[in-house]
Amino acid sequence: MKKFAERRSIRKYKAVPVSEKLIRSLAEEASRAATMGNMQLYSLVVTADPEVKLRLADAHHRQPMVLEAPVLLTFCADFNRFSRWCECRDAVPGYGNLVSFFNAATDTLLFAQAFCTLAEECGLGTCILGTTVDNPGMIIDILGLPRLVFPVLTVTVGYPDEAPQQTDRLPVEGILHENGYRDYSPEDIDRIYAAKESLPESRYFTELNGTDNLAQVFTRFRFTWKDNIAMSEKMVEALRKQGFLEKKFD
Amino acid sequence: MKKFAERRSIRKYKAVPVSEKLIRSLAEEASRAATMGNMQLYSLVVTADPEVKLRLADAHHRQPMVLEAPVLLTFCADFNRFSRWCECRDAVPGYGNLVSFFNAATDTLLFAQAFCTLAEECGLGTCILGTTVDNPGMIIDILGLPRLVFPVLTVTVGYPDEAPQQTDRLPVEGILHENGYRDYSPEDIDRIYAAKESLPESRYFTELNGTDNLAQVFTRFRFTWKDNIAMSEKMVEALRKQGFLEKKFD
Repeated sequence: MKKFAERRSIRKYKAVPVSEKLIRSLAEEASRAATMGNMQLYSLVVTADPEVKLRLADAHHRQPMVLEAPVLLTFCADFNRFSRWCECRDAVPGYGNLVSFFNAATDTLLFAQAFCTLAEECGLGTCILGTTVDNPGMIIDILGLPRLVFPVLTVTVGYPDEAPQQTDRLPVEGILHENGYRDYSPEDIDRIYAAKESLPESRYFTELNGTDNLAQVFTRFRFTWKDNIAMSEKMVEALRKQGFLEKKFD
Repeated sequence: MKKFAERRSIRKYKAVPVSEKLIRSLAEEASRAATMGNMQLYSLVVTADPEVKLRLADAHHRQPMVLEAPVLLTFCADFNRFSRWCECRDAVPGYGNLVSFFNAATDTLLFAQAFCTLAEECGLGTCILGTTVDNPGMIIDILGLPRLVFPVLTVTVGYPDEAPQQTDRLPVEGILHENGYRDYSPEDIDRIYAAKESLPESRYFTELNGTDNLAQVFTRFRFTWKDNIAMSEKMVEALRKQGFLEKKFD
């Protein structure tokens, strides 16, 4: 196995297409990932069409890699297919609710990570876009997602045209807890975040943004309360539109 | 690489412990999975203590494998550690909202699948428990999860003591869509679900439950509207308790 310990996200791709056949075979293999009650509550929308990519790029704040990647994958939580099956079999589906959305999102993300691991084994590079939840409504419209289908994660895929440095990770003891959660003291925080804070790029971003430290770059610019509140409202609106917040049995 | 195409979930384990060192090294490697803004919004609670496992088993409907597995892993969405860091650095965290929960859950599930893939590469068997969202409140209490930490997925881990048949999967064309979502016609549904419906175990469960078909086993017994509504309410309550549904900036 290609060492997972050496993986890195890839944002620059060669102008070489990724074959439909390869995507299909990776999706087939990835579907072996565990799934809730073996319901496979996901769909994968594969976008190679430049016009559709251009429209999707708007939803992803026009990040260059969305247009440059030969393939854009939108992993969707999907309770529509399962519900259609139920309807065709005189079984009454009751999946327009939050826990069903969350079960479907779980299936989708396990499938997505399995796909990415397998794709990287084949020499492809991937990058996840955290922007999928910024504008779910736009993505729903562009891809024509029906009721009970919701975009959960977008991944760019292609053959790597860069060999970036690995980004840092917290020391593993910072994420592990034995038998119960042990909350973090200020001393724990200092120790866990020390390496990250001392990186040249952390200092660079701190200076660039005119903040006192890296944490302030996140709270003031990258993941702000104001943006989070606005996105949460848009997410609730989109979940409601997609039928995942229905109170009554329909 | 051990063929992912041949993977299966393992529910019976040898009475052999899984070393802390191995879990730690798998967690370290899995933390190379992609993460939103490199924030690593997850924690992993590792439970090998039989008393804690016994208490957790109640939250998981006393499924035998929860007690029998040498290790139980509770993968938690965690915005607490990051927020503590912010607080220690005079940065004001604004992560008590739905989109932050969802970002953390995404990170957590990508990390969880990476962990499971790597664990299986080492000869371990794993099984995900879909019951984590049934009783999040109980798990939160047992593990002492603070504000902004939420249990997302539980996984049992151990050395396999069974070699089960692979379960079925839908044909891959049933989950793939090109450029946009193509909704399913009744004919599509018949074709996609034909193999699953013709399996001996599908007929067995249909007969056992006295239903007309497999879909009705799901809607009437396994994933019912009534249970889903009750669980959705418990999930909202637990999300509120953990501070992920605060409207105001605190």
